[in-house]
Amino acid sequence: MSETILSRDWMVPDDLRDWTIDIFDTLYRQSFDGVGISRATYGDGETKAMEVIAERAGQEGLDVSYDAAANLIISLPGEAPDQPFVACGSHLDSVPEGGNFDGAAGVIAGLLSLVQLRRKGVTPPRTLKVMGLRGEESAWFGHCYLGSRALFGGLEPEDMTLPHRTTGDPLIDYMRTAGADVQQLQSGNAILKPQDIACYFELHIEQGPVMVARGIPVGIVTGIRGNNRHPNASCTGEAAHSGAVPRWLRHDTVFAASELITRLDRHWQALLEQGEDLVVTVGILGTNPDEHAMSRVPGHINFSLEYRSQSKELLREFEELVHDEARIIQRLRKVSFDLGAPVETEPAMMDDRLVSHLSGVCQKLDIDHEQLPSGAGHDAAIFANEGVPSVMIFVRNENGSHNPDEAMEFDDFFLGTEVLLNGMLTAPEALT
Amino acid sequence: MSETILSRDWMVPDDLRDWTIDIFDTLYRQSFDGVGISRATYGDGETKAMEVIAERAGQEGLDVSYDAAANLIISLPGEAPDQPFVACGSHLDSVPEGGNFDGAAGVIAGLLSLVQLRRKGVTPPRTLKVMGLRGEESAWFGHCYLGSRALFGGLEPEDMTLPHRTTGDPLIDYMRTAGADVQQLQSGNAILKPQDIACYFELHIEQGPVMVARGIPVGIVTGIRGNNRHPNASCTGEAAHSGAVPRWLRHDTVFAASELITRLDRHWQALLEQGEDLVVTVGILGTNPDEHAMSRVPGHINFSLEYRSQSKELLREFEELVHDEARIIQRLRKVSFDLGAPVETEPAMMDDRLVSHLSGVCQKLDIDHEQLPSGAGHDAAIFANEGVPSVMIFVRNENGSHNPDEAMEFDDFFLGTEVLLNGMLTAPEALT
Repeated sequence: MSETILSRDWMVPDDLRDWTIDIFDTLYRQSFDGVGISRATYGDGETKAMEVIAERAGQEGLDVSYDAAANLIISLPGEAPDQPFVACGSHLDSVPEGGNFDGAAGVIAGLLSLVQLRRKGVTPPRTLKVMGLRGEESAWFGHCYLGSRALFGGLEPEDMTLPHRTTGDPLIDYMRTAGADVQQLQSGNAILKPQDIACYFELHIEQGPVMVARGIPVGIVTGIRGNNRHPNASCTGEAAHSGAVPRWLRHDTVFAASELITRLDRHWQALLEQGEDLVVTVGILGTNPDEHAMSRVPGHINFSLEYRSQSKELLREFEELVHDEARIIQRLRKVSFDLGAPVETEPAMMDDRLVSHLSGVCQKLDIDHEQLPSGAGHDAAIFANEGVPSVMIFVRNENGSHNPDEAMEFDDFFLGTEVLLNGMLTAPEALT
Repeated sequence: MSETILSRDWMVPDDLRDWTIDIFDTLYRQSFDGVGISRATYGDGETKAMEVIAERAGQEGLDVSYDAAANLIISLPGEAPDQPFVACGSHLDSVPEGGNFDGAAGVIAGLLSLVQLRRKGVTPPRTLKVMGLRGEESAWFGHCYLGSRALFGGLEPEDMTLPHRTTGDPLIDYMRTAGADVQQLQSGNAILKPQDIACYFELHIEQGPVMVARGIPVGIVTGIRGNNRHPNASCTGEAAHSGAVPRWLRHDTVFAASELITRLDRHWQALLEQGEDLVVTVGILGTNPDEHAMSRVPGHINFSLEYRSQSKELLREFEELVHDEARIIQRLRKVSFDLGAPVETEPAMMDDRLVSHLSGVCQKLDIDHEQLPSGAGHDAAIFANEGVPSVMIFVRNENGSHNPDEAMEFDDFFLGTEVLLNGMLTAPEALT
């Protein structure tokens, strides 16, 4: 790690703090919808946010352009312009009635990093690019990561016909209006090759409560959890009179489902104690309201089951555990479980070297930090799964995201930005 | 036990078998409603059933009368008419679209017993009375045991105003039409004093599957389970994103409720192993459909909880267990349970001496039998809780009751009747 570059010199100075907060305020004002923030995917809100960022970047003498997917690209040329560039970024759309920080924070952190270098006249070793990506949220067209998938030619022709949540008009119309080169995208040609990019950084607010609970301002993300989902699982037994049927003659689905959930909980605990990454959720559980009676042993229950992990292998193993336990309970309780085939979303691992690198940066800079997984999906998953070494920086945030109550402290954001800038400058060495 | 009386001589002879089956057939034909059997409480179906029974009793020279509650009373005077009489009986109403055996079997078994004695010219030691009781089913007016409660002055003035399930007319109108002396009943005067009755026997089909599963034709009922019910229990935690919130920061109500149910199941098993009588049922369980999402940790769940036992003490102890476990889980899982105050129905114990007595009768007669609790309520509970030594005989029956598929074998019924008759004849000695 180059001691000459890695330094607290990249603490954000007071004037740039005000400059930054003003950008957040501007975005807030122009995208406030009366309840929260709405920056529609490939819509006005997203485009206006890009214009604000682009304008500030231009004022600082940075290169500003839009790619064929209408993603905003801000560049600061490096000493080795022929070498793969170091990228950072995040998205500029939001869910309807969402918050101001989810997405925008990562783009602004990138911009702020380049502006610091530019104002000090520092030329980075590699060219640095900030990507203001389009369409990360699935709320508007039902699919997510539209901008980042387009980068690598991964936007399918069907995706272009997805209808807008309220107007029903196809995505392609909105893309065209936003300035995308839809013909190039339709051809399936990639805008970038993975090998053009040395590595990808994404700063993002944490969408869970872990860092607030632990009192940690900055998190280094180890991976983005994939998930296996059983949306329509059920258990069938036999309805019976609660008074007249003893335990040994029951086929009780509530006790069976409860035992399955409790057994899975015990496995979950054991796996956590072994250091595995896992969350297990039964979001939906219910006996049939049409047959509800207090004194009826329920003959049927429906439930959903979802488990998420950074480890594809653990997801597969946990699925086996679920089936094993269901089989045991079926036999013991004379019921039958139908879990259905799981809907699978693959996890994305962050690059080990970059995770260590950023942890090292935090240690050198004496910034409290922890490594943690991301439960929600991010554009970084696309980069990682394309083979680009990728890593994320989480900034502490209260009240979750996708709601108007997101509450990131600017002091935490500036610490995260310091880690981002130092991390980007010294990344090429970390990857060799 | 008097060997001169207790005897296989009381096996039902072939001619009386046909006579009995004809009564069941007659009841079936006149109360078939197109789907099952309907004999409305204090209605035509119940009254017509009484008329059939009364007619057959009269033809055999038995005394027939109706009491102030319009219950049918059939008597055979004994050698000691001033001594308390030995009673047996059951009810002659049915639920709508019910079966032909629930209730009627007990009255017909009593009639058949008296007819056997009468035909052989035997005068029993005590006067024997068969009670064809009114209004045991709550299906018609919402309250149960109307006829047996009236016997002991326990019919409340409010009960008389209960509306009929379809017409909405008050019970009192139906009682008057059926021939009841509503003025006497309204005065609260009892028709009988508990001390008038030496003991009460009730033969009834089993409403659960235990005897079929065990291959036992005759059961001796040890008690009628009471129950504690929590109809509107709930657990409140905190909704959260399934991906972004780890186990230690969750307030997961589904896992909490499942753990409570599973812990109670373990206590249930342990108590059964210790010989306790208990059934535990969660008939209703469900997350809130308005907030259903597969990837949402559910912040709320509703459920019902019912536990039944013959032991009032065990019900009280189990209630404490429920609260203790809920308290532990609340603390561990950062949720809160609201169980609400339980709705309590007291158990009724059958008389120990009569239970042993009937088991002894079965042994002497070499009839396969078992002692078991009754999960459903019966008129015998009223007699027992009034202080009348009471006992019930269950007859094996498939497919439960309160439906057209009740399936009692007549061979089993005649064995049960043999136990009833022998039991009644020798009961006074057993009680001294």
